[in-house]
Amino acid sequence: MARTSLWTAIANTLRDEIGAGHYRPGDKLPTEAELSRRFGVNRHTVRRALADLAEAGLVQARRGAGVFVAARPTDYPLGRRVRFHQNLKAAGQSPDKTILSTETRMADTREAEALALPEGAAVHVYEGISLADGAALALFRSVFPAERFPGLPAALTETRSVTAALARFGVTDYTRASTRLTAKLATPTQALHLSCREGAPILRTVSINIDPDGRPVEYGHTWFAGDRVSLVVTPDAPGS
Amino acid sequence: MARTSLWTAIANTLRDEIGAGHYRPGDKLPTEAELSRRFGVNRHTVRRALADLAEAGLVQARRGAGVFVAARPTDYPLGRRVRFHQNLKAAGQSPDKTILSTETRMADTREAEALALPEGAAVHVYEGISLADGAALALFRSVFPAERFPGLPAALTETRSVTAALARFGVTDYTRASTRLTAKLATPTQALHLSCREGAPILRTVSINIDPDGRPVEYGHTWFAGDRVSLVVTPDAPGS
Repeated sequence: MARTSLWTAIANTLRDEIGAGHYRPGDKLPTEAELSRRFGVNRHTVRRALADLAEAGLVQARRGAGVFVAARPTDYPLGRRVRFHQNLKAAGQSPDKTILSTETRMADTREAEALALPEGAAVHVYEGISLADGAALALFRSVFPAERFPGLPAALTETRSVTAALARFGVTDYTRASTRLTAKLATPTQALHLSCREGAPILRTVSINIDPDGRPVEYGHTWFAGDRVSLVVTPDAPGS
Repeated sequence: MARTSLWTAIANTLRDEIGAGHYRPGDKLPTEAELSRRFGVNRHTVRRALADLAEAGLVQARRGAGVFVAARPTDYPLGRRVRFHQNLKAAGQSPDKTILSTETRMADTREAEALALPEGAAVHVYEGISLADGAALALFRSVFPAERFPGLPAALTETRSVTAALARFGVTDYTRASTRLTAKLATPTQALHLSCREGAPILRTVSINIDPDGRPVEYGHTWFAGDRVSLVVTPDAPGS
């Protein structure tokens, strides 16, 4: 736990500037020589800072051309309401989603417990990738009770929105009952989907979302690209 | 993002049982043969599950003697009030703390900003390790405004409690203003302090704590051993 090193401080500054939109995805960063002068350090230190940002998937070096911004670090509010698109739009980012699969199968023990279903009940499983400004931000897997929401997979495919799909079944509001957060390492498949390397840090959340009657409607796992996303918890957010 | 594999399900079950105190630190787990029978899988699958728990620092294989529980996974509530000892005691765990250092120095830019201090103001820096049931749970670094709390390092060393030390300066209550969470990889020093391997997943929180007047009193970083700790956010916790 050494004091913040010089290269970390420089990486943090550049990360903040990318986050603030000073440099935007596709922009070329100043050269190593320019950054050396700006920060008053040698090129080795600049290179170490840029390598850190590249590792995080925020910048990409193109041989002979320079270093370019690849993605913007995202502050993601962990509020009581779970609205991916609205949250990102509020942060000035352009959200999108890639659907990987929808299927209906038997719940495993944990899923049945989380959704208060009997063992062996059917669930819909919805998997995909959340993107911000075109860059993969997170993988998600959401599990829904199938008996209560019979046509949900079709509604999800059509609306591309959990909020809109659940609304078709009369669930016009739902909130986080609990969220557990932990850190993991990216598996090869996750690395592929999140454009990071295997073993990169992943922030995993496991949430149970409930309707206003307290009935669980969604059991969700999300794997955030750890170095590209910060979850932000504020006292206001949970009540918002 | 493959379906939960067999070994992951077995590792999760054992993790839950260790968490629930069914097996306690120091206990020997059933043999591979016994676990194979119990879960109806071959030994290779059991070994993969045990390797996962060992990686997380929860169990330790002793050559010729078997696999022993090394630590208990901890659910750590991320509430509005920041009371490490009380939180752990409420969870039935025995909290402790190792103080690594206290020093007074000039704030860096981020610290000054977080604590609403002028550039170059003095801060106290307090670093240590939080333990639960004798196992390292997290590293922490807390930064306090030095001018407002002149004798704080001595109070921290004496009371071994941020809450008690701040109370001596009339701060009898403080709450989280905001917390940012992200995933990182353990550095060599962190790995040493947290008894995990370099590159293990780390859950990092950055918090600003304020007094009832809204003045920042503490700027804290915590690095949790990712596979051993889950942070739990519930709608009740932030208001509690």
